[in-house]
Amino acid sequence: MGKNLLVGQSGGPTTAINASLAGVICGGIQSDKIDKIYGARYGVEGILKESFVDLKDFNDEFNIMVLKQTPSAYLGSCRKKLPSYEEDKEIYEHIKRVFEKYDIGYFFYIGGNDSMDTVNKLSKYFKKVNSDVRVIGIPKTIDNDLCLTDHTPGYGSAAKFVANTVKQVAHDNRVYDMPSITIVEIMGRHAGWLTAAAALANNDEEKYADIICLPEIPFDIDKITDKINELLKTKKQLVIALSEGVKTKDGVLLCEDTSLKEAAKDGFNHAQLGGAGKTLEMLLKERINVKMRAIELSTLQRCAATSASRTDIDESFAIGNAGVEYALSGETGVMIGYVRKDSDSYEIEYKPFDTDKVANLEKQVPCDMISDDGMDVTEKFYDYAKPLITGIQNVYAENGIIKTVTVK
Amino acid sequence: MGKNLLVGQSGGPTTAINASLAGVICGGIQSDKIDKIYGARYGVEGILKESFVDLKDFNDEFNIMVLKQTPSAYLGSCRKKLPSYEEDKEIYEHIKRVFEKYDIGYFFYIGGNDSMDTVNKLSKYFKKVNSDVRVIGIPKTIDNDLCLTDHTPGYGSAAKFVANTVKQVAHDNRVYDMPSITIVEIMGRHAGWLTAAAALANNDEEKYADIICLPEIPFDIDKITDKINELLKTKKQLVIALSEGVKTKDGVLLCEDTSLKEAAKDGFNHAQLGGAGKTLEMLLKERINVKMRAIELSTLQRCAATSASRTDIDESFAIGNAGVEYALSGETGVMIGYVRKDSDSYEIEYKPFDTDKVANLEKQVPCDMISDDGMDVTEKFYDYAKPLITGIQNVYAENGIIKTVTVK
Repeated sequence: MGKNLLVGQSGGPTTAINASLAGVICGGIQSDKIDKIYGARYGVEGILKESFVDLKDFNDEFNIMVLKQTPSAYLGSCRKKLPSYEEDKEIYEHIKRVFEKYDIGYFFYIGGNDSMDTVNKLSKYFKKVNSDVRVIGIPKTIDNDLCLTDHTPGYGSAAKFVANTVKQVAHDNRVYDMPSITIVEIMGRHAGWLTAAAALANNDEEKYADIICLPEIPFDIDKITDKINELLKTKKQLVIALSEGVKTKDGVLLCEDTSLKEAAKDGFNHAQLGGAGKTLEMLLKERINVKMRAIELSTLQRCAATSASRTDIDESFAIGNAGVEYALSGETGVMIGYVRKDSDSYEIEYKPFDTDKVANLEKQVPCDMISDDGMDVTEKFYDYAKPLITGIQNVYAENGIIKTVTVK
Repeated sequence: MGKNLLVGQSGGPTTAINASLAGVICGGIQSDKIDKIYGARYGVEGILKESFVDLKDFNDEFNIMVLKQTPSAYLGSCRKKLPSYEEDKEIYEHIKRVFEKYDIGYFFYIGGNDSMDTVNKLSKYFKKVNSDVRVIGIPKTIDNDLCLTDHTPGYGSAAKFVANTVKQVAHDNRVYDMPSITIVEIMGRHAGWLTAAAALANNDEEKYADIICLPEIPFDIDKITDKINELLKTKKQLVIALSEGVKTKDGVLLCEDTSLKEAAKDGFNHAQLGGAGKTLEMLLKERINVKMRAIELSTLQRCAATSASRTDIDESFAIGNAGVEYALSGETGVMIGYVRKDSDSYEIEYKPFDTDKVANLEKQVPCDMISDDGMDVTEKFYDYAKPLITGIQNVYAENGIIKTVTVK
């Protein structure tokens, strides 16, 4: 008789986080060392409340396929960060009691930075109390900002949505015979990976993302205005891909610049400046007299399962699956990461990394992937990102609508 | 030796307007009565400037397939409305001279209301001067607000994007264990067809679009607040599908309500209230204390070729093709429309309608498709709209990015 498996999801939702969940479930079902498979509702919160669901229902190819293509977190998520053992011993002992009650031998936590911090702390606690519970982190984030792993599950699908959307919006932006600028605001507070993905819309014949503004480069309205004016000499309609996280030289978020914010209280006395896109639109309208529109991709970019990257979904499943294998082989306190094989063709291996080296760190877009003028990406970025968005994910639909699954 | 064919596109872009263009081109290529096939850049403006492109390059299956899946108007579009003959004789004579110079025998105009007005006026003019030039209108609009036709080319794809997006955003909205409302603002200034399509996200097991606000029903914040509070008793997270065109009882657009607008000048002295969604969000925040987010689908909903409706793309092609047949059989001054056969299964015929009965009229969502409380749709709407979004459009992509074509 084996031990039981518990899996939880944490942090912001993505299109691929349920594919990783499916990978963990399938790994659990396949192993005779694992008995029951529980899912914790809303991450760590569900553990503390013993709010568990039985996941053995997914022992069926069709159900797993539907789970894989369901966006957002099937089990629900939380933003709870575990305090340190010194700060709050009781919460660790509480979790231990719950794990003992449900005979949990393996715990998988699918999430971003904060979740890897939880994996780190929990695994150290279980070692400290001589428990053999194994704690494994499965990464996910559309931001692609986790260290050590080549990229993150969820990034490829979000990047693919961004690139295709930028291309399609560029076509829309060109429909009339007049100069026109569309600003597309893309998620990523600290790292510009997802905004950089707008460049993947470009091909050898044509550019669709004309200017790319990343949080890695201080925002400079004069430089942007100059580049726009230069480009408008030969091209009538432009698209600007703008990260929500762009900051001024003083490190103030464009969307939170107090000098603008103070002046923009609305009738309800709310600050109501809108996002970075609307702010850039206002700044540009003062400087350039062409038609302008700012579009915020908002949560669409992290839940667009209908146009996901098959590579991303397949890898996200495989990394969950690999996590179970590593747990069974004795690993704990690790995050499974993608390692790109050093070969001509794109190929990925799944390896464990010490969460000490991952938790609470962020990986930004490196200098050599950003063009000299700071408003475009280099070939190195294309080489890096292109393989991540390939493959058509054939979505199963009923009456034209994607089939999804929710907890009963 | 046959006459030449000219085709133009007009009005707002859609995902399907190039499929209709492809249908006209293929119809022209197939007929031995038609010699050259010209496209006018930017609609009527291109005729006046003799800005034409040769479309015979599309005599190749692959090129036609790529054209069909390219969003927005390949030839470019315009918003020019033709003045009446009495107002401006010269413009009609100008067009006649151009048609004679290029030996145009057949003119196809793919567009919305205003474009059908152009078809109406031009065809009457050609009859008046005893010319046998045939002028045919091919409808298109994501708004689905043209009369006589069962629905419009472009509506199905936009509706499918809206419905799938609402479903996916609803999943995203449910990720945390807390009450949350997402408002999705959808296009349609005067008719609520596209907003109503949010309901297609729902199925027998679950509702994803909880409240639907159409421009056909006067906006009433108290009623909406009451319905939200009622729903929140049994469901933690809600999605509201809101038309950009909702109006107050006094007929003022929600996004242009002057009492709000006056109070909301920003630091640049621009009115900066945002759209209907942001306005509803502000109004609700004063009344209901839950997490809220407003999303504007913006131009994405009219150019999302990566998740188009195959039914829509196929029909849009076929209606262009049918237009050529009707022109060759002697019709002029007509708009080709969809007629739903009175049968159990969904089947469409393509028939000509007098543009006198189409031009400048708008079709709103009828009362019997709107629920009694004015905040939902009825079974009749589902029966009407469901067939329009079916079929997976298998998009041809290169490196994960949709392949498109632009005028060289």
